[in-house]
Amino acid sequence: MQKIVFIGAGNLATRLSKALIEKGHEIVQIYSRTEDSASMLAKYLASGYTTKTEEIYKDADIYIISVSDSAYDSVLENIDFSNKLIVHTSGSLPVEILKNHSENYGVLYPLQTFSKSRDTDFSVIPFCIEANTGKNEEFLHQFAKTVTTDVRHVNSEQRKKLHLAAVFASNFTNHMYYLAEKIIEKNNLPFDILIPLIEEVALKVKYISPQDAQTGPAKRKDMNIIAEHLKMLEEDKDISNLYKNLSDSIISSAEKNNTDKK
Amino acid sequence: MQKIVFIGAGNLATRLSKALIEKGHEIVQIYSRTEDSASMLAKYLASGYTTKTEEIYKDADIYIISVSDSAYDSVLENIDFSNKLIVHTSGSLPVEILKNHSENYGVLYPLQTFSKSRDTDFSVIPFCIEANTGKNEEFLHQFAKTVTTDVRHVNSEQRKKLHLAAVFASNFTNHMYYLAEKIIEKNNLPFDILIPLIEEVALKVKYISPQDAQTGPAKRKDMNIIAEHLKMLEEDKDISNLYKNLSDSIISSAEKNNTDKK
Repeated sequence: MQKIVFIGAGNLATRLSKALIEKGHEIVQIYSRTEDSASMLAKYLASGYTTKTEEIYKDADIYIISVSDSAYDSVLENIDFSNKLIVHTSGSLPVEILKNHSENYGVLYPLQTFSKSRDTDFSVIPFCIEANTGKNEEFLHQFAKTVTTDVRHVNSEQRKKLHLAAVFASNFTNHMYYLAEKIIEKNNLPFDILIPLIEEVALKVKYISPQDAQTGPAKRKDMNIIAEHLKMLEEDKDISNLYKNLSDSIISSAEKNNTDKK
Repeated sequence: MQKIVFIGAGNLATRLSKALIEKGHEIVQIYSRTEDSASMLAKYLASGYTTKTEEIYKDADIYIISVSDSAYDSVLENIDFSNKLIVHTSGSLPVEILKNHSENYGVLYPLQTFSKSRDTDFSVIPFCIEANTGKNEEFLHQFAKTVTTDVRHVNSEQRKKLHLAAVFASNFTNHMYYLAEKIIEKNNLPFDILIPLIEEVALKVKYISPQDAQTGPAKRKDMNIIAEHLKMLEEDKDISNLYKNLSDSIISSAEKNNTDKK
């Protein structure tokens, strides 16, 4: 059981702090610059909170900093961590942003998307960890193990690439759903008709590589259907350009993979 | 219980015929121009098969035609259906392509992606039906109800748009997974690290609209991260162009939706 202070009160802090409490850890305090955010999360967790950096609890085992990437600098320079273990939770930032703020630092990056309105099952989420010493890394490993079965050692350079890949797998994928919804709604059909398809496509890549799982007009190079689809989209130049670029990319990937196999 | 002939022996025919048998229907025959496809599926189902149009069984209750869009013309003109009920399974083709081939015709379009190597749970798949008469539509409705809980009446114009939307929700989404995998592998990380994220993004839109579910650098208009990501992708012009176009599309969608709300 560890005593934890959370710096930040966003979606990740909310979900992770809750999961840590369920595993027997103690959240001694939430710090946020915004009174509402800090008090709301503290109430939810039945923990303490503060909006003043000088009032941050001094004797926690670990300080988990989870703020937006651009806020790290201003948050860090105002807090004295007395060389306690501090970790950030960002996919993009290197571990070194913490080195002037404590002798013990690391990263705890749970690779998942978090929603205010939706519960998170942490037990299957990959936690990517990194630390400045072997001892801190081992501590983080054991700590992460209390909430997940999947702990991975990922360095800052890899984590940055992982975050980039996650933008494709998550944000861009969700945007495909969004564009599909726009097309559907324009034609008086409800979005829920696509749900079983969306789920199957996502579940399938656990067993079949995305390359082998691909189907559809671009994969078959069915230029008649592609032309017909582009015609249906001609009112909306942005979407039709995306359709064209994505189809071209599927076609050229399929060709590249065929060449690679020869 | 209906007596069914399948015209075609691809992934959809394979999965659907199997599901129909499990629900008590009889597949009397598989027709395919390709001996191997016809005999393999017939063996799998313990049904009859033929590769000769003149040997097609004359007395089935329903003929389910599931061939590639471009093959329909040549398949149809060589078969005499004696005005029995014939249906096609294509998302793109209008119901009328069947009208010169029988007095009873319709469409049975299960909105899902099918794999040879993966079982399909039909009970949750939306079956989009359409027919030339109310009586045939009612027959198709009851017939579809034997394998799924979700039967929808969708006309040819809507179905074409639905198929277009499905390309975004399915093929383009899968391509996002593919691009994510390329980035991941280049950096010596295994693709399975992305699986929980991929699943959560897909499962989330059942409860939260894609618009509200969106997160990430483009949604936050975090131009620093976007610039950093584009720099990481600069070796690959195709992927970096896609990244840019998709991010622009997310940004302009978010702006459009904000304006709509005002």
